[in-house]
Amino acid sequence: MKTAVIIGSGNVATCFAKAFVKKGVSIDAVYSRNLNHAKQLADKVGGIAINNFNKLPINADLYLIAVSDNAIENVSTQLNVNGLVLHTSGFTAMATLKNNKRYGVFYGLQTFNKNSKTDLDNVPFLIEASSLEDEKILKHFALSISENVQVANTDQRQALHVAAVFANNFSNHLFAIAKQLLEQHQLSFDLLKPIILQTAQNAVTHNPIDVQTGPVVRNDKATISAHLEVLKQYPEYRQIYELLSKSIRELHVNSTKNN
Amino acid sequence: MKTAVIIGSGNVATCFAKAFVKKGVSIDAVYSRNLNHAKQLADKVGGIAINNFNKLPINADLYLIAVSDNAIENVSTQLNVNGLVLHTSGFTAMATLKNNKRYGVFYGLQTFNKNSKTDLDNVPFLIEASSLEDEKILKHFALSISENVQVANTDQRQALHVAAVFANNFSNHLFAIAKQLLEQHQLSFDLLKPIILQTAQNAVTHNPIDVQTGPVVRNDKATISAHLEVLKQYPEYRQIYELLSKSIRELHVNSTKNN
Repeated sequence: MKTAVIIGSGNVATCFAKAFVKKGVSIDAVYSRNLNHAKQLADKVGGIAINNFNKLPINADLYLIAVSDNAIENVSTQLNVNGLVLHTSGFTAMATLKNNKRYGVFYGLQTFNKNSKTDLDNVPFLIEASSLEDEKILKHFALSISENVQVANTDQRQALHVAAVFANNFSNHLFAIAKQLLEQHQLSFDLLKPIILQTAQNAVTHNPIDVQTGPVVRNDKATISAHLEVLKQYPEYRQIYELLSKSIRELHVNSTKNN
Repeated sequence: MKTAVIIGSGNVATCFAKAFVKKGVSIDAVYSRNLNHAKQLADKVGGIAINNFNKLPINADLYLIAVSDNAIENVSTQLNVNGLVLHTSGFTAMATLKNNKRYGVFYGLQTFNKNSKTDLDNVPFLIEASSLEDEKILKHFALSISENVQVANTDQRQALHVAAVFANNFSNHLFAIAKQLLEQHQLSFDLLKPIILQTAQNAVTHNPIDVQTGPVVRNDKATISAHLEVLKQYPEYRQIYELLSKSIRELHVNSTKNN
């Protein structure tokens, strides 16, 4: 991949375009519905800034569609290009791009932020392409961006996307609940920071099922009842406590049975 | 604190006794119901090994009760000593020790493991004592063990204990669920490791409410429906997805209202 066109100007577009430039890819154009946004990104990564698909160069090696999921299909149908068209979405089917001659998916699993430098070297990338030949080309290119690249079909990518909601969105929400409980008792969230970091470290070093601790796996019913009593003013958190405890119990009983 | 008696021989007893010795405290005795366990720990930290409360030295400065929560009261009533009696439980009321002359709580919030070296320097400790004088003595001592010490009453400590279940036990369970979803689609849990570490890092560097991402905060109903469709074979995980999404929505709406 020698030349690329970037479609979009948000966090993912910015982060990926910068990484492409760093690896020697020349950006031919940056498209955004908002010309100023296109200019801002083109200033950083090069290329012409456009807000009209008719002005798109048609012979770049790669067209990166980094726009919100619900806009991908509309963008795709407006393209009439010879290069490899890729979207960057975790959940959108590759087939959404099927009006193009050559297409695929280039999905990096991480939280991207326009203002912080996200290093892509270790970000897991899931790739998919409409032909074996393009899969090979895409894999070679992806490996120049990250050392963690894997071919996966749309079903697999969608499962990973859901799994990431549990591992990231939902765990972060549990941290937010914990913070609220502490503040309502005049305690600082700082108290939980060491255990939050240790929990993540344990989960990635070991199997999370093996390092599960707490009253449920000890079958310590007295503590569970007392915890629910503490939560009686927070019916919603109590409901979450009960549902997750039930789920831990079931997973733990199943994993004990299998051993 | 110059001398201590350790009651218990498990992870917390072992970890704390080692830390005491490192800070120049001399261990007079180690008690365990199982004399061999007492001997094993005494071999490491010094002191006589006993399994009979009548043989307990009565003039040590500190008596550390590091046994399971439901055994604390029984141990406490068998003590008749002059030193400061402390339990190490996150959830047991200080008043459980009230048959003693001087008593308090010495609770360190971290996952303790007998075999790994847990460094206590940064572990948050919540302390509580039956008199202001002993609170001062205990605080001074605790600060020699960790730089992160705070006086907290039983209600506060219990709230922290519940909050830690959300931040540690429950988030770890979400990682276990994510792992299952991946494996059922022939994907490795390794794919999620970078985002798990980043999530913890973001939560402790920022306010977890501010860094919440995902379809719920974007109000992306199409993705939420599609995720629920992926989860249709896993009714329990679907229920967790729905409940946590509802909770994120409510917290996010509330925090937007307050800004």
